[in-house]
Amino acid sequence: MTDSPVLALAKDLISRQSVTPEDADCQKVMIERLKALGFEIEIMVFEDTTNFWARRGTAAPLFAFAGHTDVVPAGSLDLWHTPPFEPTVIDGHLHGRGAADMKGSLACMIVAVERFIKNNPNHTGSIAFLITSDEEGPFINGTTRVVDTLMARNELIDMCIVGEPSSTEHVGDVVKNGRRGSITGDLCVKGIQGHVAYPQLARNPIHQSLTALAELAATKWDEGNQYFPPTSFQIPNLHAGTGASNVIPGEFNVQFNFRFSTELTDEDIKKRVHSTLDLHGLEYDLQWTLSGHPFLTDTGDLLTAVVDAVATVNEQKPELLTTGGTSDGRFIAKMGTQVVELGPVNATIHKVNECVNVSDLEKLTDMYEHTLINLLGQ
Amino acid sequence: MTDSPVLALAKDLISRQSVTPEDADCQKVMIERLKALGFEIEIMVFEDTTNFWARRGTAAPLFAFAGHTDVVPAGSLDLWHTPPFEPTVIDGHLHGRGAADMKGSLACMIVAVERFIKNNPNHTGSIAFLITSDEEGPFINGTTRVVDTLMARNELIDMCIVGEPSSTEHVGDVVKNGRRGSITGDLCVKGIQGHVAYPQLARNPIHQSLTALAELAATKWDEGNQYFPPTSFQIPNLHAGTGASNVIPGEFNVQFNFRFSTELTDEDIKKRVHSTLDLHGLEYDLQWTLSGHPFLTDTGDLLTAVVDAVATVNEQKPELLTTGGTSDGRFIAKMGTQVVELGPVNATIHKVNECVNVSDLEKLTDMYEHTLINLLGQ
Repeated sequence: MTDSPVLALAKDLISRQSVTPEDADCQKVMIERLKALGFEIEIMVFEDTTNFWARRGTAAPLFAFAGHTDVVPAGSLDLWHTPPFEPTVIDGHLHGRGAADMKGSLACMIVAVERFIKNNPNHTGSIAFLITSDEEGPFINGTTRVVDTLMARNELIDMCIVGEPSSTEHVGDVVKNGRRGSITGDLCVKGIQGHVAYPQLARNPIHQSLTALAELAATKWDEGNQYFPPTSFQIPNLHAGTGASNVIPGEFNVQFNFRFSTELTDEDIKKRVHSTLDLHGLEYDLQWTLSGHPFLTDTGDLLTAVVDAVATVNEQKPELLTTGGTSDGRFIAKMGTQVVELGPVNATIHKVNECVNVSDLEKLTDMYEHTLINLLGQ
Repeated sequence: MTDSPVLALAKDLISRQSVTPEDADCQKVMIERLKALGFEIEIMVFEDTTNFWARRGTAAPLFAFAGHTDVVPAGSLDLWHTPPFEPTVIDGHLHGRGAADMKGSLACMIVAVERFIKNNPNHTGSIAFLITSDEEGPFINGTTRVVDTLMARNELIDMCIVGEPSSTEHVGDVVKNGRRGSITGDLCVKGIQGHVAYPQLARNPIHQSLTALAELAATKWDEGNQYFPPTSFQIPNLHAGTGASNVIPGEFNVQFNFRFSTELTDEDIKKRVHSTLDLHGLEYDLQWTLSGHPFLTDTGDLLTAVVDAVATVNEQKPELLTTGGTSDGRFIAKMGTQVVELGPVNATIHKVNECVNVSDLEKLTDMYEHTLINLLGQ
């Protein structure tokens, strides 16, 4: 059996090892399809990151699909049942790094637009694509810089669907109409290096920090609110040691990340963390990186069109939530854009054996196409 | 002025770049001197390591000098005041890599034996040398394999002086009559990898482990005893994370090391650590590496002879201590051997500008010779 257009494109994209910030020519594949549809293409390379902006039409409103071609690293290959960059369908699920986050969505967007334009060659408004290869990395040279470029020339996106995997059990059960804020702390606790046989001459920064870190991990930061779940704290990375088993390390590096609701500001968080570290008498450096303030799209044409599209395909309305990760939606929202996120089930993203239900990809294509019809149909 | 025999030999040995596991013909130099004294020589090469066993006489008791010809790397040459492999005397101190650890001691042993045999050609018992070039490295193919070979043929050393730099302020102020045990645990705590934005779908092994590790770091393992300081626990290395700030890691690797007294066995330690980890409900792998059991030589002919020899030369008895790192003494002690460590001041070992007081080398030669007289004199 021949693969459907969506499955074939998703496989093509997954087979390209675009570990962030690599693009591995995924964008080239997308651009070729969009050019054939009459899109004007603008490639924007910033430092190590490749982005493109594609637009068809000049009229308002300007509707955009946004997404990323980069993926997180595969992690331990031994734990994968199939090679992460060899897309494989098993029991109706397409396996591979990026299948759900978010090469599947990219394939759906392209095929949905192809179908829509075939039936609506003279659609109203404009359709655009804002695609980056720096969503999983430091997101410095990706969407945020494309947005800056567009804002500088006053080319503002009115409505945007971000293809992030928003769904929980099946595609469209959840649409994200906002996102929590995200802030990262890079902590370096200072000790005194020495020989493990002479601990009295050294000061182990790991030992010093354990209780403070346990306290931060156990803290209840807020209760959340109507739109947002409670603020969460996670330690994604930590490291100490010279590698030698007989040396007490002189430094301990810990990175932690907060996903925060509108109940807290980044300043509240900083204050509370410093207070805990100080209370435990640690000597430390702490660098903060604010990745995004929380945002919310609680009404508007886009939300109406998307909810209707999902309900048409699924015969059930989506739940509107703001849970989950940050996305590039936060950068786009600062243009005043209505932003929602609609994509496949996120259960396996960033894990080994990432996969997506193949029939969900077909449904997602329909949802994107219906949204276009609702907003820009002839 | 001509160099004394000890200084000349120490310089010869230092000038050979025997960075572990290289021997650079240091052993050849020693063997030639020992052959001339009537020693039987047995060269034992195991993998990358050269060792030799030399014995003069067949009677009991069997007394041995033990030591190593390998040295740690020089480190940054810019920081050395003199080239590390060009022995140089400055202000009465011989400078060079290995001067204190332990080519100085090797020179003292050879010259002491030469003098002793000249005056005691028909000494009682037997004199031996057990020399390796793998004490500073992984100590897999060095002393431990020579000891295995000797034990296999039931050739057991009764008494042994290890020439490790035991002294603090001047030679002979401290004799080490035992050493703590050392055991290392390599712990891998298993979690479930995931996106930091969906902590409910993941399990952060760092968060799970912090309290257990804090508990281990705060545990009083024992009180020590008359000869040993309390057992110590240190975390020299730990690591978790993919490097990405948005991924909850699936594994957390922690290495810890115990230096333990004779109040505890390695089995006690293992049991207590497992019990703490299990109590906190952790899912983990834990690999143990026992580097050495504690050993103690608290009485016996050897200790009496060494203490008397030091007192004769210094007009003051040495302090007996078991502090500090491990040494090859732990491998020899398992033959049931009385083991003590007597060598120069250790203040500069493993550092740049390693050096040894030249007059301490002359005194150390006297101490070794007096010990031989006390034990095996005609």
